[in-house]
Amino acid sequence: MDEFHTRMKFCSHCGAPVELGIPPGDNLPRHICTHCATVHYQNPRMVVGCIPEWEGRILLCRRAIEPRHGLWTLPAGFMENGETVADAAARETREEACAEVEIGQLFALVNVPHIHQVHLFYTARLRDGRFGAGSESLESRLFAEDEIPWPEMAFRSVRFALSAWLDDRRQGSFGLHTADLSPLD
Amino acid sequence: MDEFHTRMKFCSHCGAPVELGIPPGDNLPRHICTHCATVHYQNPRMVVGCIPEWEGRILLCRRAIEPRHGLWTLPAGFMENGETVADAAARETREEACAEVEIGQLFALVNVPHIHQVHLFYTARLRDGRFGAGSESLESRLFAEDEIPWPEMAFRSVRFALSAWLDDRRQGSFGLHTADLSPLD
Repeated sequence: MDEFHTRMKFCSHCGAPVELGIPPGDNLPRHICTHCATVHYQNPRMVVGCIPEWEGRILLCRRAIEPRHGLWTLPAGFMENGETVADAAARETREEACAEVEIGQLFALVNVPHIHQVHLFYTARLRDGRFGAGSESLESRLFAEDEIPWPEMAFRSVRFALSAWLDDRRQGSFGLHTADLSPLD
Repeated sequence: MDEFHTRMKFCSHCGAPVELGIPPGDNLPRHICTHCATVHYQNPRMVVGCIPEWEGRILLCRRAIEPRHGLWTLPAGFMENGETVADAAARETREEACAEVEIGQLFALVNVPHIHQVHLFYTARLRDGRFGAGSESLESRLFAEDEIPWPEMAFRSVRFALSAWLDDRRQGSFGLHTADLSPLD
């Protein structure tokens, strides 16, 4: 299987085997059903999260799941059908950090094309300062800038977003920051 | 089938029937294989395009395909695995309008949760003023502001992005604009 696709062996519509081929009028290989001819497209997924601030400190979660078990992250996860990106950022924060947030502006867009993902991070503010550990977190905690555990950060996109946020706060104005990540740095 | 899911009847991994159920530790119904227990997640897709400008005019394409055959749109389409959002915007413009663009800033993010889509539009500039009609377009054409065929515009998200772009141009500064679309307006 090439890197472009995740594994698909059978048609989800009729159950017959699929094979890779380029449909008429298309220019990329797709999984095509050998029986009903359904073309199965695969598209990138959005991982959406936020940078929750409270009295100048940032809320991070320590992961209770793989990948990167035990490392720190911003609350973020796969966007679900039926929600907006801001809904997704608030829901992930509720699930992972038991915290209610007011979502602000889109702050970082990180392309991770080799794993077919786009990561979006919003600015956010805790509504009442309360937080906890959801089932995917070992703990969550507010960090002042000089307490942030950089070497124990779980993901490059989180490091990028958090570091750009701290830079922007120093300069007094929040922009939109973009990065493209390649397989190894 | 509920509105949350697109139709899936068989497991794409082993070919056995799937049924809807809530996996342990989850809180939403998913398609779960009755044989190999694989959980099949479904996530929103990104539609990415741009607002290609040339000497003050905007390039629009008239659709040669359904939905909205014969109506006008900005170049845009489903993001593919393995590319960045800016790659996707440039590729769609190449495919639909035979035009090379320099992609600028993210200009509009439109949530369309009822069809599980997020639409992203970038500012863009034609590289050399050349354009044409790709296989999904009947024609493409540059429009001055007072020539834009508003009643024949194919999609609400395109109308939103184009109208915000014209407003911002009048004010001399381009921001990031967000909208949430509901099923009927």
